[in-house]
Amino acid sequence: MKGISFVFGIHNHQPVGNFDFVIDDVYRRSYLPFLEVLREFPKIKISIHNSGYLFEYLLKKYPKYKETLSELVGRGQVEILSGGFYEPIFPAISGKDRRNQILKLTKFIEDNFSYHPKGMWLSERVWEQGIVKDLASSGIEFTILDDEHFLLSGLSHEELYGYYSTEHEGYSISLFPISKELRYLIPFKEPKETIEFFKDLVGKERLLVLADDGEKFGVWPGTYSLVYEKGWLREFFTLLTENSDWIEILTFSEALKKFPSRGLIYLPEASYKEMMEWALPPELTIELQEAEEIFSREEKYARYMKFLRGTFWRNFLVKYEEANNMHKRMIDLSQRCSTLKDAEEISLPYEYLMRAQANDAYWHGVFGGLYLPHLRSAIYRNLIEAEKELDKISYGNEDVLVIEEKDIDKDGKKELIAKNQELALFIKPSYGGAIFEIDYRKKSLNITDTLKRRFEAYHKKIQIAQAPGKEEGKSIHEIVIAKEKNLENYLIYDWHNKYSLMDHFLKEGTTCDSFYRSSYGEQGDFTILPYDYSMIEEQDLIRLSLKRKGHIWVKEEFLPLDIGKDVTLIKGDSSIRIDYSFENKSFMDYNAWFGTEFNFSLFERENKEKYIEYPDGSRSYFDDISEKKDIEEFVIFDNVLGFKIGFTFDIPIILWHYPIDTVSQSEGGFERTFQGLGILISFKQLFIKNEIFPFSFNIKFETL
Amino acid sequence: MKGISFVFGIHNHQPVGNFDFVIDDVYRRSYLPFLEVLREFPKIKISIHNSGYLFEYLLKKYPKYKETLSELVGRGQVEILSGGFYEPIFPAISGKDRRNQILKLTKFIEDNFSYHPKGMWLSERVWEQGIVKDLASSGIEFTILDDEHFLLSGLSHEELYGYYSTEHEGYSISLFPISKELRYLIPFKEPKETIEFFKDLVGKERLLVLADDGEKFGVWPGTYSLVYEKGWLREFFTLLTENSDWIEILTFSEALKKFPSRGLIYLPEASYKEMMEWALPPELTIELQEAEEIFSREEKYARYMKFLRGTFWRNFLVKYEEANNMHKRMIDLSQRCSTLKDAEEISLPYEYLMRAQANDAYWHGVFGGLYLPHLRSAIYRNLIEAEKELDKISYGNEDVLVIEEKDIDKDGKKELIAKNQELALFIKPSYGGAIFEIDYRKKSLNITDTLKRRFEAYHKKIQIAQAPGKEEGKSIHEIVIAKEKNLENYLIYDWHNKYSLMDHFLKEGTTCDSFYRSSYGEQGDFTILPYDYSMIEEQDLIRLSLKRKGHIWVKEEFLPLDIGKDVTLIKGDSSIRIDYSFENKSFMDYNAWFGTEFNFSLFERENKEKYIEYPDGSRSYFDDISEKKDIEEFVIFDNVLGFKIGFTFDIPIILWHYPIDTVSQSEGGFERTFQGLGILISFKQLFIKNEIFPFSFNIKFETL
Repeated sequence: MKGISFVFGIHNHQPVGNFDFVIDDVYRRSYLPFLEVLREFPKIKISIHNSGYLFEYLLKKYPKYKETLSELVGRGQVEILSGGFYEPIFPAISGKDRRNQILKLTKFIEDNFSYHPKGMWLSERVWEQGIVKDLASSGIEFTILDDEHFLLSGLSHEELYGYYSTEHEGYSISLFPISKELRYLIPFKEPKETIEFFKDLVGKERLLVLADDGEKFGVWPGTYSLVYEKGWLREFFTLLTENSDWIEILTFSEALKKFPSRGLIYLPEASYKEMMEWALPPELTIELQEAEEIFSREEKYARYMKFLRGTFWRNFLVKYEEANNMHKRMIDLSQRCSTLKDAEEISLPYEYLMRAQANDAYWHGVFGGLYLPHLRSAIYRNLIEAEKELDKISYGNEDVLVIEEKDIDKDGKKELIAKNQELALFIKPSYGGAIFEIDYRKKSLNITDTLKRRFEAYHKKIQIAQAPGKEEGKSIHEIVIAKEKNLENYLIYDWHNKYSLMDHFLKEGTTCDSFYRSSYGEQGDFTILPYDYSMIEEQDLIRLSLKRKGHIWVKEEFLPLDIGKDVTLIKGDSSIRIDYSFENKSFMDYNAWFGTEFNFSLFERENKEKYIEYPDGSRSYFDDISEKKDIEEFVIFDNVLGFKIGFTFDIPIILWHYPIDTVSQSEGGFERTFQGLGILISFKQLFIKNEIFPFSFNIKFETL
Repeated sequence: MKGISFVFGIHNHQPVGNFDFVIDDVYRRSYLPFLEVLREFPKIKISIHNSGYLFEYLLKKYPKYKETLSELVGRGQVEILSGGFYEPIFPAISGKDRRNQILKLTKFIEDNFSYHPKGMWLSERVWEQGIVKDLASSGIEFTILDDEHFLLSGLSHEELYGYYSTEHEGYSISLFPISKELRYLIPFKEPKETIEFFKDLVGKERLLVLADDGEKFGVWPGTYSLVYEKGWLREFFTLLTENSDWIEILTFSEALKKFPSRGLIYLPEASYKEMMEWALPPELTIELQEAEEIFSREEKYARYMKFLRGTFWRNFLVKYEEANNMHKRMIDLSQRCSTLKDAEEISLPYEYLMRAQANDAYWHGVFGGLYLPHLRSAIYRNLIEAEKELDKISYGNEDVLVIEEKDIDKDGKKELIAKNQELALFIKPSYGGAIFEIDYRKKSLNITDTLKRRFEAYHKKIQIAQAPGKEEGKSIHEIVIAKEKNLENYLIYDWHNKYSLMDHFLKEGTTCDSFYRSSYGEQGDFTILPYDYSMIEEQDLIRLSLKRKGHIWVKEEFLPLDIGKDVTLIKGDSSIRIDYSFENKSFMDYNAWFGTEFNFSLFERENKEKYIEYPDGSRSYFDDISEKKDIEEFVIFDNVLGFKIGFTFDIPIILWHYPIDTVSQSEGGFERTFQGLGILISFKQLFIKNEIFPFSFNIKFETL
């Protein structure tokens, strides 16, 4: 009888910046036991991809892993796949960076296993047709995508048993579709069900591919017990071995040789179905679900369902401006790196840049880590390290003092960048003249990387979330778990991004709590509207001057007010000087309550090593919603990261601070994440008509 | 009051290879009168794009056009847009070619008008995000897309009044959405309706863009009378002028200065809605229409309709293999061109290559010209000219004799190419060992460029097609006209591509007519199945040897038969030698009726200068469905193109020939098009078991 050919691929990945203890745990519960079971079944072949950061870690820490894998490669049981070393989203990085990411992992595999990988794992299967050229010219012959990609291009399920060829600019690679049925069967259903599934397909010669996350075999909820303790994997391999007369197990490379291509194909930009939905704005996610429901009522719903999809990966950058800011910083540094000469390229800045391309922190779905501050922080750390290395090449050992005006975030409006050896400031005049990034360069930290609290389509499910523990063995997409009670109390939505130096006017009666809850009434039109700007550069000093002719509500009237704010950076100095000026342009004097907002991404809300200290020696903690009146200075201590930020003012101010928490979904269920410390510095003042009221303060960064 | 800003863009285009008389007519009825009316209205501003081939033609032939346009540019009334010189589909050509196409048109405009264009028209608005870098690095600041593109990315209609910024690899351009409402209003509804439409939008400051085909103003059915004779355009311009207190007319460049960008956007690969549907396989077009109907029954249908779309442009190449063959020939030559040194690049081969990138012949919808043989022929002529120039650089004046094995069509299987100074042959071993291209290089003709007769979704409408004449002023998408009666008689569908040297076995009783109608029963498994191959190269000769172990039906049994066919090309010789061998591998002798099919793309079915001449001096014509028995030679004369093709055989054969007609839609309605001359050369023979039966013939090309 015509038989089944089966390719079984495994993709193991840990993001740059993940905690060692997490990786160690995954190694013990999944990566190692999988190989150990495989060793017992010499007829079984697996194609394995380890992303570079993880692969390096495993080889360094676990000689046994290298030994076992080498043995299996030697026996012909394992095909190793290449990929982007730090698992970047390929369409989101430059052509040159794509090639370098692949070549680095290929070389790593060759160096460690004397083995030349022919194919690659495409990170998150994020596909755009234009990447083909870079893949092919990096020596890649094939990659693996979801069947979703192929169905979107108009193929039927019957046409998915095999592989296709595609091209861009005449460069070709082969594409294998992953079987969705197998993705849901393995390892969640009894092993024999997969064999039954294969049996039903016998009759024509058919090639079937499963390629899926290795963490499904031991780390996903309930799977360690299922796969190893209850013996799922041994049983599966046993059944495959017993049926090897009609189920032929191949590596991808062997399948390429055995079967001819099914022909030319062009695939639309896509990823797996779920990710394309995650990339939609939440209102559209809801509309898409409604649309699916309408089709599901039709008898021939499969005919129509294939037309429905979300959007492509790049829209995560539109959905999450914080991801875009990070991405465009990376792109900007990539452009700087691309001007380096060959010898410099393989050197430090390029290495840091590539690490900063690790995809995880740039998006969010179930797995995407945008909501995880430690992952974003790892990206920024690498970006800042890359920039420091580039600055060394550009400026040598001289003290840096740079002022730049460019559309770094690519929104069509100019941003301002001011940088010295100690600090780098990124300002959006078009968005309230806010500072959207402050790098404390000595620590390679972007200390303002705080997420806006925004509505996510899945927030609607929080109310119906169940207690943990009852859903073992289910697909992650089916699980609804809340890791904490009363999460709905934290569903606060901000009306603007959580940048710094954001200008507010409050009405009498506003409290720290109402400001924290974003349920106060804004009285001015300054917070997110455009500021004019100019730049002053003196020998040892740079100053960005921001001005807006705006208004504030005074009783029933919207009265004119000009705000100027100057941001000054001095050569070699680790402080920022802020000089505000307020000019009442109306026909009358009025009282105003002005506040300037800062948001600092300092982790661990409950860590007592992190606090705010006041002149009277008292302290408050990051977890508090706290008010302190009539102070002229305060200091934020972070004894964990080892630095402090001191604020000093020329008049007494009111300090409010509160934690910024988001609620997001993750593999483990819904969770609350501390994104940063929100601060409002405010004062109440009578603004005399046509008079200028000045307000200045200083922010000083010091290592502890 | 907050007013309306209006940008009015016009795109004029004629494909490479279009007939001069057609262009002259369009000039008189549209391009010139439009400018003449514009001259009368100094307050009206228009942004104009002429594709390069047309622009060159107009400037050369009509000094008045240049004069008028220069005057309007001088007055600031006209902004000229750049684009791809020969109007290529940008995602379908290489990055370097994209840049060269743009730079050529920009330079042409600068040279002729001392004017630097800042924006460009994107051919057919075919968008992929990856093209941004090449556009930006060619000096382009903006382009114009359909609102469809923006709605697909999740924007609401309200968000379309303005322009957006986008980027790829850090390179940015601005994108203007075209208003679909305006596209349907202008010039099809009363001018005042557009003013009313604008009036309804007053209240916020809004930018509206119309950019559409110039041919809508005078050439589309009924529009000359409407736009000029009945005075639509004058009235429209008069109304705009009278309302200039609240309707500000801007060029694109002025709009860029006046309005800030609405922010960053990423647009999915798209074109206008209709084109995305045309690119679908016909069954999917029908399913998509059903899906639209399901949504249209919903109250809030607009919420859902936006999720439905066809597929992206590249799928035309999968839908029409003939388009793909042409495209991949072009890509292959582009790769050869890209290796040229700079001085040679701007020379002839590159110029021919760029002409061969003109989009029209590569796809089909209402406007797409794949079904028009003269447009395909123009592409092939330029491809062959480019290749001849490249060969001159590679081989100098030496006689060429090349044999190559490569996957030129990128379907994952190798093709064979044999070429001498006179002829080039392209063979697909994987597809019946068929010849899919024969170039008669002296005439720069691909004489085998015949289309398969295939089902198109719109064929379902042919039955309900109306007589012409009653639908003036309607959008082209609404018109259903048959240019000829009884078109349904020509709805014949082929089961394979119309290549040459395709092997058939016929059953007794098959007639020329039934073969023409593709309603015979194929008795072998040779026609489209794979042949093994080998290549022999001697000093003055190359031979491609094709072999298949196949079967034929003899009564109720499928008996084994080996076919070998050798294709020989001799240095400096303009003939092809074909040597067949048939080996009956069964247990018994049997009778077989073998035929080899050729398809020649020789235009004009009814031209009496084109005929087939037999040894007895008789003739038959391309329009005939004709049989001639027991001949050992025949000659195809094309006195128009000026060459003949002589066939001589070593045994008497039966010749069948018949016209290959397609039925397709066009601007003017459904039409029948003569794609080529179909030929079947056959003989009946007893194949003795285990004996080889040889059959040879020669095909000689001679210029008249």
